[in-house]
Amino acid sequence: MFINISWKGKLAFEAQTESGHRILLDADPEVGGEDKGPRPMELLLVSLAGCTGMDVVSILKKKRVNLEGLAIKIQAERAPQHPKYFTTIDVEYTFRGKEIKEEDVKQAVELSKDKYCSVSAMLQEKATISFRWNIANQ
Amino acid sequence: MFINISWKGKLAFEAQTESGHRILLDADPEVGGEDKGPRPMELLLVSLAGCTGMDVVSILKKKRVNLEGLAIKIQAERAPQHPKYFTTIDVEYTFRGKEIKEEDVKQAVELSKDKYCSVSAMLQEKATISFRWNIANQ
Repeated sequence: MFINISWKGKLAFEAQTESGHRILLDADPEVGGEDKGPRPMELLLVSLAGCTGMDVVSILKKKRVNLEGLAIKIQAERAPQHPKYFTTIDVEYTFRGKEIKEEDVKQAVELSKDKYCSVSAMLQEKATISFRWNIANQ
Repeated sequence: MFINISWKGKLAFEAQTESGHRILLDADPEVGGEDKGPRPMELLLVSLAGCTGMDVVSILKKKRVNLEGLAIKIQAERAPQHPKYFTTIDVEYTFRGKEIKEEDVKQAVELSKDKYCSVSAMLQEKATISFRWNIANQ
């Protein structure tokens, strides 16, 4: 897998991924950026959310769970000194659907966390990652 | 720092970052996605490139280096089994400008790698990350 990124002045960068998508990144105006795109550390959390989100949706589909919606909120704390990596990451899933069982959700989240999610496998070496969920059956 | 992501059907997700930017993620059609956005693991590499890119641009600016362009290419290999995290990551910078000195570039890259870059601090626990550079003085 590869990506390319090029500098667009000040602290803005434009990335192109191997799959052909473009993403603009930028820093906060407080540190000299112009907020033209997300911060690199935000992208790290987006990457984690997308990874575990795709895992759990795939697993629940295989289990024929009637999933109608999934939202994931991630909150993270950073080290006070450089390098300011994430020390704790809290992943909260909200599943919406019909007759979704606690047991199926628990198994899907655990399979992602322990077996499939490549992103959490990398980030959990530095950060303590917690996973919790809500189920909203209609 | 926080981000939210919501499921958009099949394997697509839309993220919103704390800074207010939206990013669409998707999987490859081979695994059931529709390629509406980049893959989560690509975003991890984009995050790394943006993080170290912003660091080195800032450091070279402080050193009053006449930098006119910077491109970063990242190539990475994944583990063969789940979780397929990155085992090696190769970061290659191409600096373009006038009278850019090898010494300044080396110091900027090393400061990012060893001190400032929060993303590489997290990923280097699982992946061996190598950093190399080219300087194109005009």
